[in-house]
Amino acid sequence: MTLNRQWLLAARPHGMVGPDNFAYHEAPVPTLEDGQILLRNRYFSFDPTQRGWMMDAPSYLPPVALGEVMRAGSIGEVVQSKHPDFQTGEWVQATGGWQDFAVATPGQGPMGVTKVPDGVSPEMMLSLLGITGLTAYFGMLDLGQPKAGETVLVSGAAGATGSIAGQIARLQGCRVIGIAGGEKKCAWLRESAKFDEVIDYKSESVADQLATLCPERLDVFFDNVGGDILEAALNHLNLRARVVLCGGIANYNATEPVPGPSNLMNLVINRARMEGFIVLDYLPRAGEAIAALSAWAASGELRYEVDVQEGFEHIPRTLQRLYTGENFGKQLLRLTD
Amino acid sequence: MTLNRQWLLAARPHGMVGPDNFAYHEAPVPTLEDGQILLRNRYFSFDPTQRGWMMDAPSYLPPVALGEVMRAGSIGEVVQSKHPDFQTGEWVQATGGWQDFAVATPGQGPMGVTKVPDGVSPEMMLSLLGITGLTAYFGMLDLGQPKAGETVLVSGAAGATGSIAGQIARLQGCRVIGIAGGEKKCAWLRESAKFDEVIDYKSESVADQLATLCPERLDVFFDNVGGDILEAALNHLNLRARVVLCGGIANYNATEPVPGPSNLMNLVINRARMEGFIVLDYLPRAGEAIAALSAWAASGELRYEVDVQEGFEHIPRTLQRLYTGENFGKQLLRLTD
Repeated sequence: MTLNRQWLLAARPHGMVGPDNFAYHEAPVPTLEDGQILLRNRYFSFDPTQRGWMMDAPSYLPPVALGEVMRAGSIGEVVQSKHPDFQTGEWVQATGGWQDFAVATPGQGPMGVTKVPDGVSPEMMLSLLGITGLTAYFGMLDLGQPKAGETVLVSGAAGATGSIAGQIARLQGCRVIGIAGGEKKCAWLRESAKFDEVIDYKSESVADQLATLCPERLDVFFDNVGGDILEAALNHLNLRARVVLCGGIANYNATEPVPGPSNLMNLVINRARMEGFIVLDYLPRAGEAIAALSAWAASGELRYEVDVQEGFEHIPRTLQRLYTGENFGKQLLRLTD
Repeated sequence: MTLNRQWLLAARPHGMVGPDNFAYHEAPVPTLEDGQILLRNRYFSFDPTQRGWMMDAPSYLPPVALGEVMRAGSIGEVVQSKHPDFQTGEWVQATGGWQDFAVATPGQGPMGVTKVPDGVSPEMMLSLLGITGLTAYFGMLDLGQPKAGETVLVSGAAGATGSIAGQIARLQGCRVIGIAGGEKKCAWLRESAKFDEVIDYKSESVADQLATLCPERLDVFFDNVGGDILEAALNHLNLRARVVLCGGIANYNATEPVPGPSNLMNLVINRARMEGFIVLDYLPRAGEAIAALSAWAASGELRYEVDVQEGFEHIPRTLQRLYTGENFGKQLLRLTD
């Protein structure tokens, strides 16, 4: 094991991200300094925000440099340790990037370096209890502030974050409407995730369906999508509604700026709020979210799906699945070789 | 005095509002029921939100019906009273509408029925201490939450609301940047209202000037305008910035939906908030605002201008001045005949 396969950022994307943006590279396995651990990556997390990390624009993390290993959340096995709290053989969540071997420094890194607890699978750690689950938890509860009896809309509802966010709102006693694409995802939302109503944006008009489904208007809109869906939702806000801006996947791969909603005056008329957040700010409170999410999952009240691809060579193409909507549940990739 | 001249809403506007949207009418002077007072209108307040009242669309107040007297804030003299607390000769603020004589019912009406206090001029009552002053006060302080040392941007900065909002932020110890149109307004903002920086959108690029003037980015943006100015400001938000949506005058007279900002993701990256409000919700706290605004004005720390037109026949055209930017300060009209 002296070879470290890597996928480097080779070209910043213009339009849809894809394999052409990355270059395969082989490097030596890195050596450690005191306080570091060497991880053999076993799982990668795929997250819509990675598209933003590839751009040379100010954001909440510095851009990935051209020629640098693509940044990614990961779970790896400790194969060497120069840190007293980490032992060989332990499984650890880190920001290992698209490579076989990653050096991690516990206490550092944008998403921290955390041991996978006993009894928690890597799939659960990277989905329900990972960045996407925590995003759903804090975005819905801290920003959305759903109250029993309120109506909550979630876009990207079958996604790793949206599906958890909607179920959390249901568990608060809300009526939950989800927007997703395709019958398979919509059926899962209805039958497994127990959303009250589902809109299939691929076969139905979101604007028309919202008019039909929410005569009492929306108290919370948890938005992963932006674009036309945001515009449609803004026409149905209730007084003092909360629009939680989690992401805007409709725009991530656009080649030209996508016009925003023409109806922001609905925020004025309805004394409503639109607010963005970054889950990294909430990591100090991760324990609270993990406890609640674990308990809901254990009782069967909260369901989640993972979509696990295989093989180092498929990493770049797997990222694209997020933006085409091919993934069903949290997108992961496992290395078994 | 048996004739009541009126301006009725004759046609809902499409594009720029103007005299063609109104019809002159003569009606008998109305008679009173118990609990009512009859006002002879002396001053009318002109407010950008009146454009919205003319549209048959859901809003925070019901639309003015076709054939109905145009709704407007006003100050009138009590000429007859069937209410024990109001005496003939007193001057009263109400929503009297565009007519010589209005019936008001104290305790009712969207903006209430309030006596003009001793020592307060009608001009001051309808500007600094009226809806526009209160909008500035509660929008800036309750939603904007400016803190000493922060940078605050105000659009429509020479307007009746924006000019007060910016000065309130200055009085909190903020660095205040105003956007206004034309050298006369910009000079007033610099010299009288003591804004730290002024951008003349008619002769300068707002986007370029913002990049130059706010390297430390914006903590509060108090927006009356929307459109391109909102988009430019969103590119300069600081972490946890507050965007106070007061209005969107750029869109009020548009014939087609005006695309919104394509960069709402800046709210996410910067954990920022955009929030709308309607000042009517704050009327129970009006006393607090009036006390503070009066004290600042009395000490000379807060300046305001009024633009007083004359004559019943000029009422419809005077409304248009708000949207062309012709007004300098709070737009009023006085009836002296």
